Amino acid sequence: MNRNTLLLSFGALALLATSAWSADPSSEAIASELRDKALRGESIAWDFVSELTTRIGPRPAGSPAERAAAEWSARKLKDLGFENVRIESFPMTWWVRGTERVEITAPSPQPVVAAALGGSPPTPAGGIEGEVVIFPTFEDMKAAAPGSLAGKIAMVARPMPATQDGSGYGVAGIARRDGPTEAARRGAIGYVLRSLATGGARFPHAGGARYDGARVAIPSFAVSEPDAQQIERLVKLGEKVRLKLSSTASYVSNATSQNVVADLRGSERPNEVLLLGAHLDSWDLGTGAIDDAAGMAIITGAAKLIAQAPRKPKRTIRVVFYGSEEVSQPGDIPLGGRTYSTVHGSEIASHMLAGESDFGAGRVYSVSLPRGAFASPFGTALTRVLAPLSVVPSSVPPGNGGADIAPLEKLGVPVFVLNQDGTNYFDYHHTPDDTLDKIDPAALSQNVAAWAALVWLAADSEVDFRALRNSDSTAKR
Amino acid sequence: MNRNTLLLSFGALALLATSAWSADPSSEAIASELRDKALRGESIAWDFVSELTTRIGPRPAGSPAERAAAEWSARKLKDLGFENVRIESFPMTWWVRGTERVEITAPSPQPVVAAALGGSPPTPAGGIEGEVVIFPTFEDMKAAAPGSLAGKIAMVARPMPATQDGSGYGVAGIARRDGPTEAARRGAIGYVLRSLATGGARFPHAGGARYDGARVAIPSFAVSEPDAQQIERLVKLGEKVRLKLSSTASYVSNATSQNVVADLRGSERPNEVLLLGAHLDSWDLGTGAIDDAAGMAIITGAAKLIAQAPRKPKRTIRVVFYGSEEVSQPGDIPLGGRTYSTVHGSEIASHMLAGESDFGAGRVYSVSLPRGAFASPFGTALTRVLAPLSVVPSSVPPGNGGADIAPLEKLGVPVFVLNQDGTNYFDYHHTPDDTLDKIDPAALSQNVAAWAALVWLAADSEVDFRALRNSDSTAKR
Repeated sequence: MNRNTLLLSFGALALLATSAWSADPSSEAIASELRDKALRGESIAWDFVSELTTRIGPRPAGSPAERAAAEWSARKLKDLGFENVRIESFPMTWWVRGTERVEITAPSPQPVVAAALGGSPPTPAGGIEGEVVIFPTFEDMKAAAPGSLAGKIAMVARPMPATQDGSGYGVAGIARRDGPTEAARRGAIGYVLRSLATGGARFPHAGGARYDGARVAIPSFAVSEPDAQQIERLVKLGEKVRLKLSSTASYVSNATSQNVVADLRGSERPNEVLLLGAHLDSWDLGTGAIDDAAGMAIITGAAKLIAQAPRKPKRTIRVVFYGSEEVSQPGDIPLGGRTYSTVHGSEIASHMLAGESDFGAGRVYSVSLPRGAFASPFGTALTRVLAPLSVVPSSVPPGNGGADIAPLEKLGVPVFVLNQDGTNYFDYHHTPDDTLDKIDPAALSQNVAAWAALVWLAADSEVDFRALRNSDSTAKR
Repeated sequence: MNRNTLLLSFGALALLATSAWSADPSSEAIASELRDKALRGESIAWDFVSELTTRIGPRPAGSPAERAAAEWSARKLKDLGFENVRIESFPMTWWVRGTERVEITAPSPQPVVAAALGGSPPTPAGGIEGEVVIFPTFEDMKAAAPGSLAGKIAMVARPMPATQDGSGYGVAGIARRDGPTEAARRGAIGYVLRSLATGGARFPHAGGARYDGARVAIPSFAVSEPDAQQIERLVKLGEKVRLKLSSTASYVSNATSQNVVADLRGSERPNEVLLLGAHLDSWDLGTGAIDDAAGMAIITGAAKLIAQAPRKPKRTIRVVFYGSEEVSQPGDIPLGGRTYSTVHGSEIASHMLAGESDFGAGRVYSVSLPRGAFASPFGTALTRVLAPLSVVPSSVPPGNGGADIAPLEKLGVPVFVLNQDGTNYFDYHHTPDDTLDKIDPAALSQNVAAWAALVWLAADSEVDFRALRNSDSTAKR
């Protein structure tokens, strides 16, 4: 072996060390290799979620912190090689929590761990005080007669079950969304909700309530699970329980939120877009690690792995970080998703497929595709590539792809869902305890692996998901 | 069978249903039956801990709530049939938390979950602000040169390991107790401690610091584990991190605390006392369920079961609820324990044995007795009776019976310890999350069972624990 041969060998070894690709890999081989790189932790996902949540912390919709997160994200996407990175702003009202305090004043004074619901109005400076009236469910409160809650503080005490797919939250959510309005209609001066939460830790779970005009109807709070139990026990001991609610919440009506949009341009069909969404804003109590910096990290980590593949996929991959997912007022559709579908209205007919990551970093256990897609060449390859991740084809098509892409769905864009295990998601969601340490790095990597494989295969495919969907919905096979 | 026979039979059945005692049970048989009644949940322990923590909530040392808890407890002990129930008051300074706030001000603003250490002085109205200097351990901070922390906020970031016997807390505790004084000596304007905590939830863990004269040296806070990690990560990202500390803490110097003392008088040797201790006060953040309403419930539940036995034990059983266990200032010995040993000084020579329950409601796994006691008739019976509870004899004698009975130990009173599994104790201890739902009713019953058996056997025994201890300590066998 002479010196040149030795150098050549070193060069070949270095090439082998930096790429595991064969000379002309198939689309499925690339998907498998992207999956394995992600599983080995070779994505930027952990660093992304760590740096975002550490540098910026909480990112309430419409706040300067959300703006700072958008600017940080845009710089990061450019540094990672994304193209056409832009920040698309829109006006909104920024609700500011201020200082707040909930306490039991009778039968004997004790503090209550609670957080005002998003959009809740301030109380008078001295707070408001009244006897609490407990309803087991929202429906029980709605059955109360008009005026029957005059001067009272209404409380809905329904506990939320932990479920793998988050369906417990869906059922309980109406009590947060519509509780203040319905309590006010019956004369209540305040509203208290047992947190939409699992796990039993003494954290309040924030979240938005429906606006009644420009604000939530009456001062409204989520109390922690142990505090809800405490109030219930006091009532069961035969006591009249009085609560005092204080809040200096305020509204900044000329605030701004923004979406961040970035592309990886496709090689053959650049006008055909695969959209990957997650949201930029968070509630103010935690640092928004699981909700939803994790989702931002998953989709960005997956897209960046694809950008490092030996060739570009045929279609364009678009990453969208939506602002103001947590706030939809006025109306029911989050502001960021609503804005995207307006601003990009002319492009939506060429959006081939969309998916959203907004359920923490729990492991993916199944995949839902548009009807007919599992039988396509894309679907059969995907099923094989996801099998080693313990991800199975879901027997039901995607019900709801996510809050931010819902407007796209309405406009005919097919969606996929990588269904995550959310059994413990609501232990942390919207609480002060939604922090980086609640993310399992291995589970995060598994998410990136599943996203990278699916997005690569879909972007490199010629399957027309829109046509599949249309043919299927007309034929009703 | 005529009608009278039938009535008689019903009467006999009723008798059987209300008592499982044989005609003339042995002391060991009674101990076994007390144990089994406790395991079946037939003690007042759960109701006691539930009602106390629900009605009164937090019970800070020296506060009106601690007084209310003492009055409630004294009424409860009388209702349960205890004799000579008295409240023994003593003066102290009540430290009042007030409102407080910790925030990162640079590189970008975000809130920090924190709680002032007990005794921490207020800040000026605008708070104090400075760059944080992190030390991995307390010893590292002590190695810093005088003046080197001028204008800075010192932080000790040592994580605390979870251990079954709580030894992790013992090792880490000095950083809370002496951290403020040592930081101030080096010029620091504030002190921040990574909470002495396990479990990783975003709660601050309160607790007292050493007074430097009439107060803690400088404003001092415990930050939650996730916040300590956040500050460490920011520093590792190359940022200068500034913290702002605000507190309106105050001292009420003419406050009162109190011990509650109650007896079950012995049948043959009423002057010989077995003392069972637990503490009445709690930190202010939680409702003091595991620390230490659980201990109060365990010893009261055990004593009440003994009071319902078919005969009285020979010796007197005394229950003491100590006030101000959490506060020892000035000095190192908790005020309640110190006061008891002074007020009852003349009786202490006839205190035969003492034990304290102050480690939550985790299961008992072993029992430590004074040297020589396992070989006594009491010890051999106890070993047999505790075996079905999976409680084994400890190979080491009691090191420290507990903070409140330490003064009795110094005065020669032998102690026992029912060692509890505290692996998860510091997940909740001194946090807002120390609430009733953190107590496992089955584990609470197992504690009552072990206490009832041990206390019955010791109170009904003629073994002279004081003589055993003295003979052993002189003979050094």
